[in-house]
Amino acid sequence: MTRPSYGRAFALWRDASPKWPAYVGHPFVEGIRTGDLLREKFLHYLRQDYVFLIHYSRAWALAAVKADTLAEMRAASAAVHALIHHEMPLHVEICAREGIDPEQLEATMEASANLAYTRYVLEAGYSGDFLDLMAALAPCALGYGEIGARLNGSGGPYADWIETYGGEEYQSLCRDVGALIDGALEHRMGRDWAGQPRFEALSGRFATATRLEVGFWQMGLETEE
Amino acid sequence: MTRPSYGRAFALWRDASPKWPAYVGHPFVEGIRTGDLLREKFLHYLRQDYVFLIHYSRAWALAAVKADTLAEMRAASAAVHALIHHEMPLHVEICAREGIDPEQLEATMEASANLAYTRYVLEAGYSGDFLDLMAALAPCALGYGEIGARLNGSGGPYADWIETYGGEEYQSLCRDVGALIDGALEHRMGRDWAGQPRFEALSGRFATATRLEVGFWQMGLETEE
Amino acid sequence: MTRPSYGRAFALWRDASPKWPAYVGHPFVEGIRTGDLLREKFLHYLRQDYVFLIHYSRAWALAAVKADTLAEMRAASAAVHALIHHEMPLHVEICAREGIDPEQLEATMEASANLAYTRYVLEAGYSGDFLDLMAALAPCALGYGEIGARLNGSGGPYADWIETYGGEEYQSLCRDVGALIDGALEHRMGRDWAGQPRFEALSGRFATATRLEVGFWQMGLETEE
Amino acid sequence: MTRPSYGRAFALWRDASPKWPAYVGHPFVEGIRTGDLLREKFLHYLRQDYVFLIHYSRAWALAAVKADTLAEMRAASAAVHALIHHEMPLHVEICAREGIDPEQLEATMEASANLAYTRYVLEAGYSGDFLDLMAALAPCALGYGEIGARLNGSGGPYADWIETYGGEEYQSLCRDVGALIDGALEHRMGRDWAGQPRFEALSGRFATATRLEVGFWQMGLETEE
Repeated sequence: MTRPSYGRAFALWRDASPKWPAYVGHPFVEGIRTGDLLREKFLHYLRQDYVFLIHYSRAWALAAVKADTLAEMRAASAAVHALIHHEMPLHVEICAREGIDPEQLEATMEASANLAYTRYVLEAGYSGDFLDLMAALAPCALGYGEIGARLNGSGGPYADWIETYGGEEYQSLCRDVGALIDGALEHRMGRDWAGQPRFEALSGRFATATRLEVGFWQMGLETEE
Repeated sequence: MTRPSYGRAFALWRDASPKWPAYVGHPFVEGIRTGDLLREKFLHYLRQDYVFLIHYSRAWALAAVKADTLAEMRAASAAVHALIHHEMPLHVEICAREGIDPEQLEATMEASANLAYTRYVLEAGYSGDFLDLMAALAPCALGYGEIGARLNGSGGPYADWIETYGGEEYQSLCRDVGALIDGALEHRMGRDWAGQPRFEALSGRFATATRLEVGFWQMGLETEE
Repeated sequence: MTRPSYGRAFALWRDASPKWPAYVGHPFVEGIRTGDLLREKFLHYLRQDYVFLIHYSRAWALAAVKADTLAEMRAASAAVHALIHHEMPLHVEICAREGIDPEQLEATMEASANLAYTRYVLEAGYSGDFLDLMAALAPCALGYGEIGARLNGSGGPYADWIETYGGEEYQSLCRDVGALIDGALEHRMGRDWAGQPRFEALSGRFATATRLEVGFWQMGLETEE
Repeated sequence: MTRPSYGRAFALWRDASPKWPAYVGHPFVEGIRTGDLLREKFLHYLRQDYVFLIHYSRAWALAAVKADTLAEMRAASAAVHALIHHEMPLHVEICAREGIDPEQLEATMEASANLAYTRYVLEAGYSGDFLDLMAALAPCALGYGEIGARLNGSGGPYADWIETYGGEEYQSLCRDVGALIDGALEHRMGRDWAGQPRFEALSGRFATATRLEVGFWQMGLETEE
């Protein structure tokens, strides 16, 4: 099994997160890999993912507000810009190809599982600091990287989606995010960050966010909210 | 059917919230009324409600930060104080009587539906202003009042719980919260607040929070997370 | 006297802000216009302005978090990107030409008047909503536009600085920011936003921020903190 | 010279804060001690201090939102309650005795130096975590304790003010706040918190807040804003 390397904190967080296998190996993900996922489920997911992207972009904007160094600001600002000015229009385009027009997309009612994850991330960021935000964002940012790396080359009806996250561009971005996180930990806590109580609390953030990501895939399998 | 009067905004929000009947008349609530709710489900709910109270108190503390007037500050501060120094110790006591000791309470893993509602409220408060926070808090604060008023006098094994929310003390508090909300709207938007786009957005906040409250009761019926 | 037009809200806010003339016509500004400002004062200002830009960028990132519409998000995100990836490197370059190397810039101790303005803006944004943030940011964003428009063509030793803010690119940006603000007001408050109590509160935000901008220029004249 | 003991972090922060002596030994403080401070200056300060108390209470409410443990929540909530329901009414009463009626108090225009300190504290709390907030609040909470302890027994026209901060009740509160801070550091960073980069950053917060407190006393000496 491919376990991509996105830095030290991610490796530790993943190992301390009981639901990680249930997230990256969720039946929804398996359905994408084998191609057995019903198109209708995938479109439901795409619509929710569009709403997700809005709040995910806001979370990265909050990271720019909460950054301690210029390097952190630049990384967060570049992420926001890429999300809002590239990934979101791309998403609109993909949805349009699937017959979902922009008005329908805009009218999507945000599912509870979607609300749960994004608001958890944003609240973690508001109530905590840059590290809390990173720990809550990481299951999404890096989990999609791990899923993409695992599914890469599977082909089938969802090959485009797989290529988006399994391709070198996204994999490289994941390594950058991993390095940003490791750097942020060291900047604030010194080289021995892994043994501190704070790091344990961050692992808890990551584990909770992972649980909510499982709920997101699960929501993808249920057409009704 | 008893529909208590907690002010003008609440009445409008309730009518504009499609899931309101599903919330205040949820099978969990019916089980409390008839006494048919399994004790085990009720204890599961009590444990989650303890975790809920922590974040609910934080939300009222955020209301004190976001207040515009001294009257708003005082009301929010009094709510925080009552929650942390009275309601939470009372909750610990009730749980102890039911055989759940404080250590077990502290160790409760926050259910996803619990996370979803409280983080939605806190994020609404952080990202928006005092009104956004009130609109997101109201389904809990005033919905429990409406449920209490409706169930009042039902007796049965959950008579204590019913009395807590149906009794005059909580009902009076609900009228105060309703007046706080109406006053806050008028203070910021003038007397014609009901017709403004802002009020419609607040109705949306209330409706979303109501949906998440339905999820909270639903979680109460499912022992497993 | 040139009074540029950056929309309706700005015109109303400016008129309701007693210190506006003291801000846009401050002796520091006059010194830039006539060229009589001591180089040493200007360099002191440039160093402080570099620190200012960091927090100003954070404020625009917070605007992206607090946006209600995609258009607001896009505008805020574009502002952050331009500030962090273009204006800040440009500032570093300008300072370098003046003999201030990046290490010195980084080591600048943030003056109290600088802290006062930027933290006022950020706190307004955190405690309030998108509109509070815009009202607190506007004296800087649009005031520099008004100053630039007024000084345009003055030439002298500070002609580059004048051209930056008086040139068409910045003037066009100011018109966009003005339109963003007017649009945000109408989106939330309907067409009659100017008569609402909320708008009066926003005028107060703008007036306070203007007072703090006067303090910023004043700080520019005092080499010692 | 009396240097009261309010815990380990405070002692370290005080020593690392170059402006600490200028703050606790400011001419305004000396004027209170000797009784030579003009009444008019003192009344100007009292009016500003009333506005200060509002934002200081909001900062403690934010501490309740940002608390990690129930003990932290309880301490912050008790502080908010004491400030809003006891200290603020007391302040109104003191001002009334001095001939400043509540309407005048409410109408006080917040001085720039006042804005600077409170918004710095609130922004530190919003952008950072509980520790950032404590480090920014400490110069006020504990500095007033140190000043009170030093001036205790001086008598003179300002004996009441001196007794408020020099008396056992406030001194005991300062020891509690100091213990809260030391506990919060250990809870998040383990026993070796003093050597971590994070602690150095917090020392920076404390030092900046101290600088702004010097500005607050200075403002007290200048009747004009």
